[in-house]
Order: sequence, then structure tokens, then C-alpha cells
Amino acid sequence: MNLPNMSRRSVLAGLSTVPLAAAAGFPELAQDRPGRPAEDPGHRRTTLLRGADLVLTMDPRLGSGPLGQLENGVDVLLRDGTVATVGHGLAAPDGARVLDARGRIVLPGFVDLHNHLWQSSIRGGCANEGLYGWMNDCNRATLPKIDPQDMYRFVHLAALDALQAGVTTVVDWVHPIPYDTSERYIRALDDAGLRFVYASAQSAADAHLILKIKKDLLDPLPLASVQVAAHAGMSQLADLRTLHALARDLGVMLNSHVLENRGDRKDDPIRSLREVGAFGPRLLMNHAIHLTDEEIALTGEHDVRIAHCPLSNMRLASGICPLPAFHRHDVKAGLGHDGGTNDTSDMFNVMKAAVGLQRARHEDAAIHPTIPAVLRMATLGGAEAIGMADRVGSLTPGKRADVVVLDPGTLNFAPRFDWTGQIVLNGQPPNVSEVFVDGHLRKARGELLHVDTARVVREAELAAAHVRTA
Amino acid sequence: MNLPNMSRRSVLAGLSTVPLAAAAGFPELAQDRPGRPAEDPGHRRTTLLRGADLVLTMDPRLGSGPLGQLENGVDVLLRDGTVATVGHGLAAPDGARVLDARGRIVLPGFVDLHNHLWQSSIRGGCANEGLYGWMNDCNRATLPKIDPQDMYRFVHLAALDALQAGVTTVVDWVHPIPYDTSERYIRALDDAGLRFVYASAQSAADAHLILKIKKDLLDPLPLASVQVAAHAGMSQLADLRTLHALARDLGVMLNSHVLENRGDRKDDPIRSLREVGAFGPRLLMNHAIHLTDEEIALTGEHDVRIAHCPLSNMRLASGICPLPAFHRHDVKAGLGHDGGTNDTSDMFNVMKAAVGLQRARHEDAAIHPTIPAVLRMATLGGAEAIGMADRVGSLTPGKRADVVVLDPGTLNFAPRFDWTGQIVLNGQPPNVSEVFVDGHLRKARGELLHVDTARVVREAELAAAHVRTA
Repeated sequence: MNLPNMSRRSVLAGLSTVPLAAAAGFPELAQDRPGRPAEDPGHRRTTLLRGADLVLTMDPRLGSGPLGQLENGVDVLLRDGTVATVGHGLAAPDGARVLDARGRIVLPGFVDLHNHLWQSSIRGGCANEGLYGWMNDCNRATLPKIDPQDMYRFVHLAALDALQAGVTTVVDWVHPIPYDTSERYIRALDDAGLRFVYASAQSAADAHLILKIKKDLLDPLPLASVQVAAHAGMSQLADLRTLHALARDLGVMLNSHVLENRGDRKDDPIRSLREVGAFGPRLLMNHAIHLTDEEIALTGEHDVRIAHCPLSNMRLASGICPLPAFHRHDVKAGLGHDGGTNDTSDMFNVMKAAVGLQRARHEDAAIHPTIPAVLRMATLGGAEAIGMADRVGSLTPGKRADVVVLDPGTLNFAPRFDWTGQIVLNGQPPNVSEVFVDGHLRKARGELLHVDTARVVREAELAAAHVRTA
Repeated sequence: MNLPNMSRRSVLAGLSTVPLAAAAGFPELAQDRPGRPAEDPGHRRTTLLRGADLVLTMDPRLGSGPLGQLENGVDVLLRDGTVATVGHGLAAPDGARVLDARGRIVLPGFVDLHNHLWQSSIRGGCANEGLYGWMNDCNRATLPKIDPQDMYRFVHLAALDALQAGVTTVVDWVHPIPYDTSERYIRALDDAGLRFVYASAQSAADAHLILKIKKDLLDPLPLASVQVAAHAGMSQLADLRTLHALARDLGVMLNSHVLENRGDRKDDPIRSLREVGAFGPRLLMNHAIHLTDEEIALTGEHDVRIAHCPLSNMRLASGICPLPAFHRHDVKAGLGHDGGTNDTSDMFNVMKAAVGLQRARHEDAAIHPTIPAVLRMATLGGAEAIGMADRVGSLTPGKRADVVVLDPGTLNFAPRFDWTGQIVLNGQPPNVSEVFVDGHLRKARGELLHVDTARVVREAELAAAHVRTA
């Protein structure tokens, strides 16, 4: 087994103790990890983004308005993987890499609160079915056909897609999979080079796997953290109780799909979550569409968090999330791609849909979310919802340097009229020019660095061919 | 005045008879037309697209299902600006340009039924206002500030944006502008190289301008045609009568915004259209959201046509078009960007929104439009709605060669699972690899040909700066 260029970051702790599928079946491990970011520490050189036309810090203390806006020749200094300073006229420290940001827009990387990256394997699938039909015929039918190697390929492709589109933190709700598949899943996420929260779904009987995954695979990775994923509902009460206890003991969030479809009401998930004591600030509810007014109020009272996935809700005929009502109750909410269903990773599109869906329904352009509100949801709001706002979501000095640079000089975006509106209404993934994660430059001049994209795609096609014939 | 490389196609008939603004104020005319397509007749060489993995002809007689689907090694021959043959194992004629389409998807170019390309000048603008506020503060406030030269720049940018995203026919509803500005508007459309329908809006008092624009500026251009744009409503009855009579006399369509906002009901536009005798197959109603059930039924009975613009309707808080009801009454409908409001040109996004908005509202994944239905709306359905289905909208041999090639080998689209679903749910403008208009290759390998995009953007920024300081 050949493992070149190993560093602390890339060595999974499990490697030494776990009989890896890789060791048994995949002798060409290096070959099997296309696009693994180089470990050159130069990647985290001190970087000065010089002279941006617009910076949205998301921190009102740093600039004007709710987005902490600064304009005209703004500098952003990244050092030791953190945002060091934001302001005008900063000097470049000795040896710093200086990137010309004139004419550019700088903002925090997007936080995708809900995804299932492995579902790049079923893109476009069961496209004329709603949630339950899609779950049955595409989601459940496909997952068992994916071996560990192919899992790596699907997740790696999807994670790179998210990263290139400006996502620097993704919360991945990972369906129950064997330990060796989990290992490859996490490896793919780590290799892609974004910050990730692995919401591990195992039955209560397999809860020990969550502990093992955390200890062996996630804890050694600086960009990784863990949540406990669970199904809510009165029929799941025993499992839910066990998994909530596990999340509480670990001090991590419980992450659940809640009332995504009207049919989910019959199992009364809110009651189940309250009964096991999970209904609090360490609960993330995905979708949260079909709540009663009373349940919405309770969500606010208990400080429960929401991941809103408008494109997925549209695609799967799930309904329209009562986001304005949640907002009235001060519920902390962010945005999710729910990648396997919506089916791509384009936070601009998700923001546009989040705004437009409520406007179209309420025939009111002032309804929540407004343009500033949706930009905040896609960044700091998402970080707050999962308790990571001390680290990411804004360009506040001291936070990790997860930063996106947008190039507005494209046919779909130019000319400048209202750039804040244009980010949401005109932005497309190709506008994402640079992406930094934890100070590492992952995308520059519109291209992912050290990634053989054609090969990533080719290997995903191979994996898809396996799934089709399995 | 220096006019290099003039050809029949590019010389506007008006040049010889009309005192052009260009002649008076813009001596550097060639300089002022960045990205004008070269006139090299080689651009319309016989072309064989060889070996496509999937071709959606939109003609059920040519392939399977409603989309006329052909798979695995399909050839498409374009000759003399038309689709000559579609099938397997075609021989390349002598001298033909052969493009390798293996691994690619081929379909007709998109038909954008409703746009106002000049509104690239107000992208992202008045983003927290609904239709009326946006109309007042952005649309009406900006139009008078745009001089002919800047009009060229805004329209050219937006038309190229549409073209690069796969739009080969655009219907542009052009607000009342002076004749010299119209000349520059049309020049920009023609220079961009797409097929366009110029829906000229002038008051009844200026109806003669429509005739003059048609005769002098549009009739000489093979890719141009005309419609008469008008405001409907009982307060507009006299003008509407005159303009409808003009459209009828010219044998062209009347094109009107109808019930885009609930507030439009009070002027009873349907009654006005019926009273002047316009309520028939030569009427295109844009948006058509707030119709009564009876009016929807009448729309079907009278074979009136609909342009549905879901992203615009979402952005401007207009409401949700009763598209399924129109469909039950067999109303011919297509899709529009309404570019100035939605605010970009991405037909994938428009299709996804058209599907998702109805699904989210009705909580029914089988509701119209389905995935095949929306792909048809974006192509042949649009062509049918404006009476152009004899020329464009499908790959039927004999029709004009307006063709799009998609590259599915990208992080946002691959791997293959259900490509038809993936076009709608995963497609992004960068997937548009090749675009042919009337047999001319306008985009190849993902890049517009003979267009200095950076310069187009730069000049649009100059124009925007003028508007901001005007």
C-alpha cells in the first residue's frame, strides 16, 4: 500500500487500527483519491485580499447595516487560518501572498446546513415522484448498491461541487452505512478540503458506531465535527431517546428531518422530540414545513434550529416552509441544498428560491426573508443554527478564514447596479472566483486547485455505471 | 465613419435613409460594437454532430416519448442553416465540419418567450420591492437615462448572456423608446447573433414608429421578426384598439402583460382584450397570474397564448401562475426569463422554478409541468405559442438549425443517472457547450465565438456608470 505525502491532517487515525476496506480491496489508494488537496503549507500562507469593491462581513460592528458592509478598497488579511483584520489601507506582512481584489466582492463562505452528498449518485432520479416515492425508488433502492470505493467517488464529486460553488461548511446527514463505507465517506469529505459536520445516522442498536466514527475518523480532522442524526416520530421513540442521550453525552447536536411531508404528521415528530427531551437549542430540524402554529411558537420558545431547503421542497412536492412565521418567533434558521434532491449545489439558487417562494406565496416583497436576511441565513445564520458562529459565518477577526471572493465581471452579473441584490438574484457558481477554507486557498481564478476535475467526473461515472448494473 | 466588414446581414436598411445617432455622435461605430459576430460564411458550414449519447428532438415522430428521444451514437446533420437529418450512422458530407458529440446531449435551443434585455441596466435593483415599486423606482426611473449608445451596451450584454446560456430565440418586449435608441437596440440584438422577436411598444399616437422600425430595421434581418406590444386594461381601450388593429394588419402577434399583479384586476385587462377583438391565437399574454377560473377557460377556448415567468413572479412577489389550470384547458404556454427582473438568463433555473413552484404549492409531484412538459415548454412549446413552430423549437428536419449541445461531464451535472431529469434539476449555463443559431456556430467548447466578453462587460459598466450619474 502506497501512501505518499502523508501528513497529520490527511492520516485518518483509524488507519492504524481498523482493517480498512482500502487495505483489503484497493491497493492503489493514492490512485483512488483524485484531487486530494496538496499538503503544501504554502496553501495557508498569510494572504492579503487587497482593495475589494465590496465586503459583506456579516458583522454589523465592522461595517454598515445588517451585513456589516464595507466598500471601496477594502482589505482582508488572513493569517494562521483565521481572519486577522478587515479594513482600509492594511499593509501586507512580509511574505504575504497579495491577491488583487479590486472590482471583487468578498464575503464569508456559505454554510450549507443540510445535504446528503452521496446522493450525487441519483441526480435527476425519480424526477416525477414526491418525497415518499423518491425515497423508496431512488434513495433506498440505491444506497445498498454503493460499495466503499464508489461511495468515495460520489461524495468527493459532490463535495467538490459544493466547494467550487462557495460552500465552505457543509452539514451532511449521512444515512446508515457500514463502518468501512463511513471511513471512505469521511475521507472523501476531508480530501475535498471543506469544513464538514458529519451527522451520522445509525440505529440505536448501532450507536456504538457513531462513537467509533467520531473517535477514529472525525476527531483527528481539524475541519470535521460530528452530530447525531436520528428519525423523529412516535414510532421511533425508543431509538430517538437513545440517540438523543448519545448526542447530549457527546455535547453535539441532534439532527433530524421533521415534517418534511404532510404525511409525516401522523407520527407526530414534534411530540416525540419533546418527550425525549430533545426539543431545545441542540436540535436541528431539517425542512420543518408542516408544523402547526403552536408548534412554530414552541420551536421559538425552545430555541430549536431550522434548516430550510427550498429547492428540495419544491422538487419533492413537499410544500412551502412557514419561514416568515418562524422568523416572527426568532427561530434561528439557515439554508440547505439537500443536494441529492435539489439536485445540485448552488447557494445562489437556494437563496433566490428562499426569497422568491415566500414572495410568490404571500404576494409581498417585504416578507421574510429579505435579500439581506437571506444572505445572512446562507452564512452567519447557518453557523449560528449549528452552534458554530464562534468559528465561522462572518469575517469577524479571530474566526476561521472561510472566505469567498466573487467576480461580478461576467455576462450574467455585470454591470453593477445593486450588488447585494445581484449576489442573490444574478449570482451563479462561476462567479465564485476564490474560495478559502481555514485559510487554505481551495479555488483560485475560478478553478479548483490541485483537483483533476475531469478525473473526478470520470470516476463518478464509473461508480454510477456500477450502481446501474448492481 | 468607418464600417468595416459590412455584409448584407449586418447592414441595417435604415443606415442609408435614417439620420443615425451613430453618425452624429458615435464616429467610432466599429469600436462601439464589441463582439459583433464575424461574417465568415464558414460559420454556417455544413456540420455533423456525431455520436451524441442523448438527443431530445422534441418531435415524437423522430424518437421515443413526448420529447422524441434518441440515444447512443445519434448524429445530427446541419446544412444550409437547417436541420437536415437526425439519426444513427449518418455520413459526413464532403467538407462538413464534424463535431464529436459523444458523451453529449443535443436539444433544440431554448425559446425565451418574454424578456426586456435593456433591464440588465437595473440588475438586482429595487430588490426589496414588488412589481409596482420596482416598476416605479427602477424600471421607469432608469429607462429615460439610457442614451442610444448605452442602450446598445446593455442589450448586447444581456443578449449574449441569454445566448451563452442556450437561448436561441428571444421575444423582447421593448418599452417605448425613441427611434434612434430602437435602432441601437436592434443592432445589439442582431450583433449578438440570436433569433429575436422585437415586440415594439409605442403609444397608439406613435404607432407609425412600429411600422418604420419593422420596415427599416427588422425586415432586412433574417433572424428578426416583429410583434406589437401593448398595455391591456379598460383605461387603455382606445390605444389597445389601435395597436391591435396594427398587429392584425401586419399579421403579427399582439404581446401584452396581463394580470401580473393582483392589483391589475381593477383595470380588467381580459375584458379590454376581448372588447377590441384581440382575444385569440395571435395574442401572447405575459405572466397571466390572477385570472378567474372563467377567464382561464376562455383563454383556452380562444387559443390565447401564455408566457410563464416563474422566477420573475417570485422576485416581484407577483404570485403563482395557475399553470396547471391553463394546461387543463390546453392553453399553449412557454417560458420566459423576464430578464430584467429575475434577473439573469438561465433557462435551467426557470424550468426548475416552473416545476418546483407548482409542486410546492400543490404538494403533488405529478402536477403540470412535469419534467418532460417543462423541457417542451422551454423549446417547442414556446415556439408554438408565438407561431414559430414551423421554423424553430424542435430538431425536425427542415427547421432552422437552432441547436444546443450540453456537456454533462461537470461537477454539477455528472454522473449520469437520469439525464432528462438532470437537464432540468442540475443544468447550469456552463453546461451549455455549443450553441448554433440558424446553423451559425455561436458558442463552442463553452466559449462564445468572436466575442470579447471582457470588453462587453467593461462597456456595460461604463454605461451603468452613466446611468448612475445621470
